[in-house]
Amino acid sequence: MLDDEFAIIEDLFAPLTEGVDGAFGLKDDAALLGDGPYVVTKDIIVEGVHFRCQDPLDLVAKKLMRVNLSDLAAKGARPVGYLLGCTWRAGTKRKDIATFVEGLSEDQQAFRVGLYGGDTTMHRQENAPTVLSATFFGTPPRHDPIPRDGAKVGDDIYVTGTIGDGFLGLKSFLKEEKFPRADNEYFQRRYQLPEPRVIIGGALAGLASAAIDISDGLMADCAHLIRGREDEISAVLRSEVLPLSNETQDWVEAQSSTDSAMAALATGGDDFEILFTAATSRRRSVEMAANVAKTPVARIGTMVRGDGGVTLLNPGGKTIKIKKSGFNHFR
Amino acid sequence: MLDDEFAIIEDLFAPLTEGVDGAFGLKDDAALLGDGPYVVTKDIIVEGVHFRCQDPLDLVAKKLMRVNLSDLAAKGARPVGYLLGCTWRAGTKRKDIATFVEGLSEDQQAFRVGLYGGDTTMHRQENAPTVLSATFFGTPPRHDPIPRDGAKVGDDIYVTGTIGDGFLGLKSFLKEEKFPRADNEYFQRRYQLPEPRVIIGGALAGLASAAIDISDGLMADCAHLIRGREDEISAVLRSEVLPLSNETQDWVEAQSSTDSAMAALATGGDDFEILFTAATSRRRSVEMAANVAKTPVARIGTMVRGDGGVTLLNPGGKTIKIKKSGFNHFR
Repeated sequence: MLDDEFAIIEDLFAPLTEGVDGAFGLKDDAALLGDGPYVVTKDIIVEGVHFRCQDPLDLVAKKLMRVNLSDLAAKGARPVGYLLGCTWRAGTKRKDIATFVEGLSEDQQAFRVGLYGGDTTMHRQENAPTVLSATFFGTPPRHDPIPRDGAKVGDDIYVTGTIGDGFLGLKSFLKEEKFPRADNEYFQRRYQLPEPRVIIGGALAGLASAAIDISDGLMADCAHLIRGREDEISAVLRSEVLPLSNETQDWVEAQSSTDSAMAALATGGDDFEILFTAATSRRRSVEMAANVAKTPVARIGTMVRGDGGVTLLNPGGKTIKIKKSGFNHFR
Repeated sequence: MLDDEFAIIEDLFAPLTEGVDGAFGLKDDAALLGDGPYVVTKDIIVEGVHFRCQDPLDLVAKKLMRVNLSDLAAKGARPVGYLLGCTWRAGTKRKDIATFVEGLSEDQQAFRVGLYGGDTTMHRQENAPTVLSATFFGTPPRHDPIPRDGAKVGDDIYVTGTIGDGFLGLKSFLKEEKFPRADNEYFQRRYQLPEPRVIIGGALAGLASAAIDISDGLMADCAHLIRGREDEISAVLRSEVLPLSNETQDWVEAQSSTDSAMAALATGGDDFEILFTAATSRRRSVEMAANVAKTPVARIGTMVRGDGGVTLLNPGGKTIKIKKSGFNHFR
């Protein structure tokens, strides 16, 4: 409970509901969401885990929105709105929350979503970290939402955008790697402000056989596509076709082992790109979807008959050893 | 991120989605919610604020569900399902989470709701408190959802159940008051396990002119019913008709000032009863709704022309002085 919770809700958060009749101006505990069905998703970000205490709160707000929008995108759903849950560090100031709201407001406009409601509270315990959650709603695509477990043996595996920038952004923040100044800025920005692939997400519905957004890392999220399936299916990815930014390419070239570097990028996490599969007969359609959505898409591997594993091959066709898979949030 | 997050989700949480096709067995980041529209609500409970670190996690789970169900009840909505967001204290054990899931499971059956999805994460920082949130969905009543701001001058003011038990439960836990042993148990139970008024909530749609669930305290939540309204309306409550349990009645009688005691109960919070208004012409219907729902309802006051205030009168017709209004969560 903030001392001036009502003032903060009325002054700062209520304006975010403009145009959303069902939000009742945040004067109600409940909101009304018209005309379903809906695709819903809920993601949490935690200070000290998913963002740093010194991160600007407008960027944190955008990250909160974007990790959720990314989940909707992987279903092919069109985002509509969200409910927000904030538990603030004790002593959080009104101006900090105002900065947070600024970030929300900018991304609401960028992604055309509205705030429907939520809850705001404050820790009593000193130094307890801020916990932010959002529940996002989207309308399903004309076709069914893209399933997670629909990949078939023989399907191509694709990824949007580039892999590894977020991971190197984390390295940059942690000062675990040294980069040229401009690259530092680029990587950090990519880590703090992922680009949810909302537009191509919509275009992939009815086309992709399976999809997931990459938050835990390419290898881990590829494993999620086949996790728990009872048929014999495995994924084989080829390291030399993983799409890299120029900045990341430079970093790879500076490493002693290209294989190890590619393994690190493929397990790093925080890419928020869409990993998806599609039948080989749909290659032309995938290309067209990428063009229409103006989103780069790379074909990076194949689903094969196998025991449920994910393999990363080097250009010589050898398996690159993966030490660990996924979960590289801020430590 | 829990070490064995996937095992915990598959083993403990996924069984909670039984019968909920749209939850995809929690193997997906998104859920599909069929056939809207929906009433949605999101409430957070925080360790050290809304519950105590030593509280049994099955009761904490039920409190999380019930504070949200109470919000839906106040709209007259029928609960359908929820998304869950957990940020656990570092070092939380699998068996603790299993206890939490047991509580969820029991209340899912009691209130016939299903789990649709969510997110589970863990603090890295030592001693950071557990933060639990839920987003609940319900179907609106046949009539429109009960508005918060629909009370009219002349309307009766009603409340379900009894007032003050939760507040005395908090006092009991904090050892700020001494009670007979049986009363201690009763009050603590009422604080830990509120009874969301789901059934009468549904019966009040189309009948109540306004409604809210009492979480901040009778006086504060009554103020919420008229907060921000531009017409001249005030609420007058009469202390002698506030419904009290026998245990609370005993406590009142042991106090030196009945007025102060009633003021404390009316500002205490954590009742999770429904406060609502209805036209005087609907008294018979309210009575019937109470009978059908087997839920006690007391008529406790009147909406009058005024400046937006809430007044509590003693049996002599004098205004009882209220020191503070609302927000009596666990301190």
